[in-house]
Amino acid sequence: MKAHVPQTGSFRWEGIEVRPYAKDGTHFEGVTRQVLFEAGGSELRYFEIEAGGHSALERHDHVHAVMVVRGSGRCLVGAEIHDLGTNDLVSVPPETWHQFRAPDSEPLGFLCLVPSDRDRPRRPDEADLAALRSDPAVAAFIRV
Amino acid sequence: MKAHVPQTGSFRWEGIEVRPYAKDGTHFEGVTRQVLFEAGGSELRYFEIEAGGHSALERHDHVHAVMVVRGSGRCLVGAEIHDLGTNDLVSVPPETWHQFRAPDSEPLGFLCLVPSDRDRPRRPDEADLAALRSDPAVAAFIRV
Repeated sequence: MKAHVPQTGSFRWEGIEVRPYAKDGTHFEGVTRQVLFEAGGSELRYFEIEAGGHSALERHDHVHAVMVVRGSGRCLVGAEIHDLGTNDLVSVPPETWHQFRAPDSEPLGFLCLVPSDRDRPRRPDEADLAALRSDPAVAAFIRV
Repeated sequence: MKAHVPQTGSFRWEGIEVRPYAKDGTHFEGVTRQVLFEAGGSELRYFEIEAGGHSALERHDHVHAVMVVRGSGRCLVGAEIHDLGTNDLVSVPPETWHQFRAPDSEPLGFLCLVPSDRDRPRRPDEADLAALRSDPAVAAFIRV
């Protein structure tokens, strides 16, 4: 990696590829992924969710450390829904359901720090969804 | 750590202490440190250098992965001086002299990702300084 990688457009960087968020699916919508750093056993990625879009509802053993750097949005962590503003921080503990949603008016962009060596995310099965939907606020929030 | 840590002021966060950058010294000026995350073997810190200030000139074995998130500035990495804008990325390789400076007009704030288990920074001795100062641009840039 070059010592200095300038931003070339709004949250786009010289030589850093804008990648698909995940394999095709209907469980996420309007999300891109850019890997900013792979260093010291960790990766720092930038995800951007377009207006009205959402990340996958998932959980895994590794921890997500998130900092919002563009726009605003909401997230589910466990059974709680949080309103997010620019520069807010989010910690997703191990094995905790989480999903990020952009508002209809603007994109939501955030940094996400993860270990390079990590387990794969798992999506909810029917029993998981039934448990999640037992809370009306969570039922209204989640997108699958 | 709470799941959601809101920004409470400009680059200040609920429950996150604003710490001194390092022990007292004249080798840095006007720098604060906030540890945003300790997760998965890494730490993500936010450093802010006030207008006209500078970080220490130092090197170490661990890698620094930096993203500017507030203002602008300049940095030395090895023998090169880079102009930095908001959202620019900087990679400092192992054992590479580096120093960040804020402009006189505004603070420079940046995220810095490091391994939790890392070696201590080392400052230049007289021979190191003589070598650095053999380049006039570097000589004019560095603050010790």
